[in-house]
Amino acid sequence: MKVGGRKQGTMTPCAACKLLRRRCAIDCVFAPYFPADEPQKFGSVHKVFGASNVNKMLQELPEHQRSDAVSSMVYEANARVRDPVYGCVGAISSLQQQVDMLQTQLAQAQAEVIHIKMHQFSSTSSDQQHQPSLNMPQSLWSY
Amino acid sequence: MKVGGRKQGTMTPCAACKLLRRRCAIDCVFAPYFPADEPQKFGSVHKVFGASNVNKMLQELPEHQRSDAVSSMVYEANARVRDPVYGCVGAISSLQQQVDMLQTQLAQAQAEVIHIKMHQFSSTSSDQQHQPSLNMPQSLWSY
Repeated sequence: MKVGGRKQGTMTPCAACKLLRRRCAIDCVFAPYFPADEPQKFGSVHKVFGASNVNKMLQELPEHQRSDAVSSMVYEANARVRDPVYGCVGAISSLQQQVDMLQTQLAQAQAEVIHIKMHQFSSTSSDQQHQPSLNMPQSLWSY
Repeated sequence: MKVGGRKQGTMTPCAACKLLRRRCAIDCVFAPYFPADEPQKFGSVHKVFGASNVNKMLQELPEHQRSDAVSSMVYEANARVRDPVYGCVGAISSLQQQVDMLQTQLAQAQAEVIHIKMHQFSSTSSDQQHQPSLNMPQSLWSY
């Protein structure tokens, strides 16, 4: 039987308690999200946010939101470890640039569609204007 | 004269030292980036990252990168205060969705351009194929 993501009765502390060298209680707030076999997951959030802040942030959330909160904190922490200057704000900036570029390209492509359609329409209507003169011989034949 | 963003000789501690209730040394690592008149700036990074982690992260960076690092940390911290579950990973996810949607719309618009151009080309070439028959009466007139 699993309680808080751990097998009841086992003595293995979660990755957080192992790193913090503390007893892993049965109601440990970290245990469900930081299993012993993924030590680097807690390592990065501890380095960036600090164990005490992570603990506080988790305690302030209802249980059903904690897993998502841990995932986003691990993502943010890994980004900060990889890029200590910009962290995941670097990814936001790069995505924002991509959005701007795509919006420009989309506007150009949409303008091209309108331009071609208008050109096509004006050619068609000028063809139609010319058509009577082309048809004239046909009407002449009937005479 | 300003040293580390503060007027020399003034006793006002920076926002970080004020919050941490400590003496603000002349070489305080926080002082250039957390002025006394913007207390909420340090408040959010302290709440999310912890003063000790921010101190460590700044110390590990060369001085010319610290201002950008502080800006990105303040951005991240404010995002986490606003959205304790997703933080700025929520913005990344939303931007990624926007990129995906724009890429789909761009591909559709580009396909439409190609489709119209091909249709236009095939109409033009079929017009050219029909032209001799349209011209036939003209040539008949010459007889």
